Amino acid sequence: MRHKKIIYQPIGIIHSPHKEIKGVPIQPSSAKGIQGEIELFEEYQDGLKDLNGFSHIIILYDFHKSKGYSLQIKPFLDEKLRGVFATRAPKRPNQIGLSVLKLNGIKANKLYVENVDMLDETPVLDIKPYASPFDAVEEEKIGWLSKNIKESDVKKSDERFK
Amino acid sequence: MRHKKIIYQPIGIIHSPHKEIKGVPIQPSSAKGIQGEIELFEEYQDGLKDLNGFSHIIILYDFHKSKGYSLQIKPFLDEKLRGVFATRAPKRPNQIGLSVLKLNGIKANKLYVENVDMLDETPVLDIKPYASPFDAVEEEKIGWLSKNIKESDVKKSDERFK
Repeated sequence: MRHKKIIYQPIGIIHSPHKEIKGVPIQPSSAKGIQGEIELFEEYQDGLKDLNGFSHIIILYDFHKSKGYSLQIKPFLDEKLRGVFATRAPKRPNQIGLSVLKLNGIKANKLYVENVDMLDETPVLDIKPYASPFDAVEEEKIGWLSKNIKESDVKKSDERFK
Repeated sequence: MRHKKIIYQPIGIIHSPHKEIKGVPIQPSSAKGIQGEIELFEEYQDGLKDLNGFSHIIILYDFHKSKGYSLQIKPFLDEKLRGVFATRAPKRPNQIGLSVLKLNGIKANKLYVENVDMLDETPVLDIKPYASPFDAVEEEKIGWLSKNIKESDVKKSDERFK
């Protein structure tokens, strides 16, 4: 199990106005109104049936520009070393990103999305419908983020995770 | 890009009371109070620093018992064919699962979690802190799920995605 390889293949690609690692909104919450497009490879198009009934979708993707990782890092919202699993930093043992996006429409194999915080050309791994009964919880505490989370609305990435 | 392989490795394993594909709660919301343990492989333990400040975590994992997929399937909560990307069904092109769990405590490389809807021995891909400013949105519509979602609290899996 420990050294088993798990192999996935991109199902599509993200077209986004964010062309460089520096200056990207660090979360969809800081990318309000930023539009992009998810191009699903045509062979998967039939899997989009019924998705246009949902206003929001969860995108899982590969942080394709991140190479390597450290187990403790200084996240964008803090100056202290934090455990990587207590952060959303892109350099992680398996560099999977997760963003909840607004879905504005679907045409054939193209999804028109909003609040895009991914880099252009990011490979897409999965698309799931967002439903708050499954995905939203009332958390009691958000650790180190509690004192910094307000900044996340305006914070942009620098090059620390290049 | 299209045929690029993306290779990940399990960072840990889930210990859960759900030993068989049949009868598993279909979401954490239908697994209230069910406890389990995430065993992170020791080499990743330093990445857990600060995570105990969070009451909830997002677990990404591989649906290791699902083989193959169809682009349209009948989900547990419906009897109609739905596009796989409009469902949370385990048989998907990249069979990645996502669950938001309650974190009750961490001891060394063990995470004690609640609302467990994963099968025993599920390989863990990533652990992220849950924070509603990032992860919760107020959706306007949840498509076909809207008429069935109340059932999700009690619904258990059958063997259709074996």
